[in-house]
Amino acid sequence: MDWAGYTASLSKRINDRNLRIAVVGLGYVGLPTAIAFHNAGYEVFGIDSSEEVLKALRSGTSPVTDEIGLDVPFDERWRATSDFEEAISGCDVVLVCVPTPVGDSLEPNLAAVDSSLSSIVSAKHNDQELVVVMESTVQPGTTRRCLQNITGSSDPSEHGIHMAYCPERVSPGEGGYGVGDVGRVIGSCSAELTETLADLYRGITNGTVTPVSSIEVAEASKLVENAQRDIDIAFTNELAILLPKLGLDVQEVLKAAETKWNFHRHTPGIGVGGHCIPVDPHYYMEIARRYGVVSALSPAARELNSSMPKHNALEVLRLCNSTHPDRLLVMGYAYKPNVSDTRGTPVEHLVQSLFENGTKEIYVWDPLIGDNRIREPARRVSDPYDLEGIDCIVIGTAHDAVIDADWGRLSANLVSPRIYDGRRCLDPKVMIESGWAYHAIGRPFEEVLG
Amino acid sequence: MDWAGYTASLSKRINDRNLRIAVVGLGYVGLPTAIAFHNAGYEVFGIDSSEEVLKALRSGTSPVTDEIGLDVPFDERWRATSDFEEAISGCDVVLVCVPTPVGDSLEPNLAAVDSSLSSIVSAKHNDQELVVVMESTVQPGTTRRCLQNITGSSDPSEHGIHMAYCPERVSPGEGGYGVGDVGRVIGSCSAELTETLADLYRGITNGTVTPVSSIEVAEASKLVENAQRDIDIAFTNELAILLPKLGLDVQEVLKAAETKWNFHRHTPGIGVGGHCIPVDPHYYMEIARRYGVVSALSPAARELNSSMPKHNALEVLRLCNSTHPDRLLVMGYAYKPNVSDTRGTPVEHLVQSLFENGTKEIYVWDPLIGDNRIREPARRVSDPYDLEGIDCIVIGTAHDAVIDADWGRLSANLVSPRIYDGRRCLDPKVMIESGWAYHAIGRPFEEVLG
Repeated sequence: MDWAGYTASLSKRINDRNLRIAVVGLGYVGLPTAIAFHNAGYEVFGIDSSEEVLKALRSGTSPVTDEIGLDVPFDERWRATSDFEEAISGCDVVLVCVPTPVGDSLEPNLAAVDSSLSSIVSAKHNDQELVVVMESTVQPGTTRRCLQNITGSSDPSEHGIHMAYCPERVSPGEGGYGVGDVGRVIGSCSAELTETLADLYRGITNGTVTPVSSIEVAEASKLVENAQRDIDIAFTNELAILLPKLGLDVQEVLKAAETKWNFHRHTPGIGVGGHCIPVDPHYYMEIARRYGVVSALSPAARELNSSMPKHNALEVLRLCNSTHPDRLLVMGYAYKPNVSDTRGTPVEHLVQSLFENGTKEIYVWDPLIGDNRIREPARRVSDPYDLEGIDCIVIGTAHDAVIDADWGRLSANLVSPRIYDGRRCLDPKVMIESGWAYHAIGRPFEEVLG
Repeated sequence: MDWAGYTASLSKRINDRNLRIAVVGLGYVGLPTAIAFHNAGYEVFGIDSSEEVLKALRSGTSPVTDEIGLDVPFDERWRATSDFEEAISGCDVVLVCVPTPVGDSLEPNLAAVDSSLSSIVSAKHNDQELVVVMESTVQPGTTRRCLQNITGSSDPSEHGIHMAYCPERVSPGEGGYGVGDVGRVIGSCSAELTETLADLYRGITNGTVTPVSSIEVAEASKLVENAQRDIDIAFTNELAILLPKLGLDVQEVLKAAETKWNFHRHTPGIGVGGHCIPVDPHYYMEIARRYGVVSALSPAARELNSSMPKHNALEVLRLCNSTHPDRLLVMGYAYKPNVSDTRGTPVEHLVQSLFENGTKEIYVWDPLIGDNRIREPARRVSDPYDLEGIDCIVIGTAHDAVIDADWGRLSANLVSPRIYDGRRCLDPKVMIESGWAYHAIGRPFEEVLG
């Protein structure tokens, strides 16, 4: 392979904006990435199998509602399709941004990756040179192995398939951590290609783009980031269980500890949700097991974080002076603040646990979730002020809309104003002074009335 | 208790520098703290039971060699004594800076705390008002319980003993984290007293002094800081075991991961030593157990970090192509760079493990350790260049003096130049280009020769 010649021509086309990019998977990561490359001046084909997604995009509407100011393009440099042939033919660089979830036994499920890569390889012409950049989180070695298997070659470059990995890092709903902000890491099958692709990514982000020596280093960096985060949060959640037993508020202790230069503060809560932090550690644990490394930290973190919905449910019941409250109102259902994403939301497990412990009616209000994604036994309500005889309000997600609710008006819904703050997003002093019985994760029960 | 009146008079005496402070325990923490208060203009009595320490101090020499620029005072505002009566009589504030180690079964050993507090209480006059500030790391509740037991009163203030806790945070050998730099947290038995003591501490540090609502919050903050740090380092050490098995260098992966805004980078190594990080998690685990919280993270971290000396020993033997090298030279023995402190040093366990695995002669060079603190079977050498027939050099501690050694001259000591970098403190490229076979913690064995 003449890498110098190939990357020189690729670089020229990047600079001239004479490059076609395809993006497979138009979800929370793929769509803003595709739009970012379009906005940078490239011709972009978005590929998705969902007719619903494609229909929205063709009508100029974003199917991803959590990315602020995400304007769907509508010009000749933008196409949304389910047809790999159409998108890949004439394409220079294809990004794979598909989900990498776990299966029923918590094992890595690479079905979407395999299927996307197979479709890409099938659609590619024999004489076409195509860079395949994986962005989905995988174990080190996965990108290479999958493409070796699909092309039947130990060196897919011989078939014009040039492998690269550039882990996505967007944080939906969090200002300042979108596609245009985050630093990137990139590795590929050739040092020259890595530098060229780093330049391509520099065109869509203000963050630093860091080339690394291999695809596998880039793959490992992402897995390591999220496995660490799960462990960090687990320790914070453990403190939220222990410290109240000693009469201490976890938030005050963490606030004191974070005045040390090397302490990392996290917020305890109802649990860890979404499609990354609760999932990626299973990818990490699986590969550690496979290589004979006894990893006890990640399993402990997963177990602890997974136990939080139940712990919180029991604290709610404690606040209700009863194991069988009649009616609860849960405010916020998404897995994190200010997103409409319910994948892996711990609030679902909280509801389940409240129900299993005898709560009769559980109403859920989440203004960001407009459809049927709130699961039974929870009942969706569209107006939190239009309820009667509620025993307790439970904060499930710290949406701005939840924090800014009219608490005075809400208190009229309740038999006696009682709130459980599962996200530590309200000021206890203010709530107690307004007449609420206030309990929260990590707070001593003795302080319910101030 | 008239807190307003008492603290007003205390504040005046702080401002007028008309205050006597005693410091119990003149070690790595107590001595620089005592000197800092002396330098701030107060009259200071240092209390220590060691005649050796007192003799050094009286001759104007510091028994603590790791604190840069620590000048022992020599004037009428400074006295070093073993006599509590002499020091406590007429004293306003006494700080307790004694070791809180673990016993043989890894249980908290509060003997030094109990003994110091008993001596303080015995020495205090009946009509004397005395603030007792604990700085030693303890479990939440310890300061209060110990002083309640010793005074036989649920409110020691009734006996003129006013309890406070202000955890020490100095990091010996590390520039910028001395007594005069670090932020502090302080809690006491009275909100007014806490504010007054915060002002006192503000006189010795440029860091922020944060008052908290109770003694117990301050106690918990310290325990939480060090338990988190042990877990963080353990995960990094786990990566240093796993990633080389995948052909990846942990340092390159961590360098890539740390470009993410919320990733915390640590350095893998031979293990975690000293008198805090390997000890404090046992205090945390004990209190968690006592309150029925199943803490799996800290035990996993302790086990992993404790296993590192053996893991490193096996990697050394692998580099030596043999399970029985004849002669090894270990460079650096202290528990962390640029200190002479050998307490809990993992290098001791590394040496033990090398010996148990058949290494015949293990020489240790540590220019900061001048006495007999290097334990058998290691043999102390004072000149690392004066050795012959060495099979491998092992870096145990990343002292500046180790990094800056004359590697060209050292290579003449070796049968064939071989080095194992247990601290990732040398540049692999430079060493390999200079003809060394270079192996290191977290580095794939395949890269020994570049």
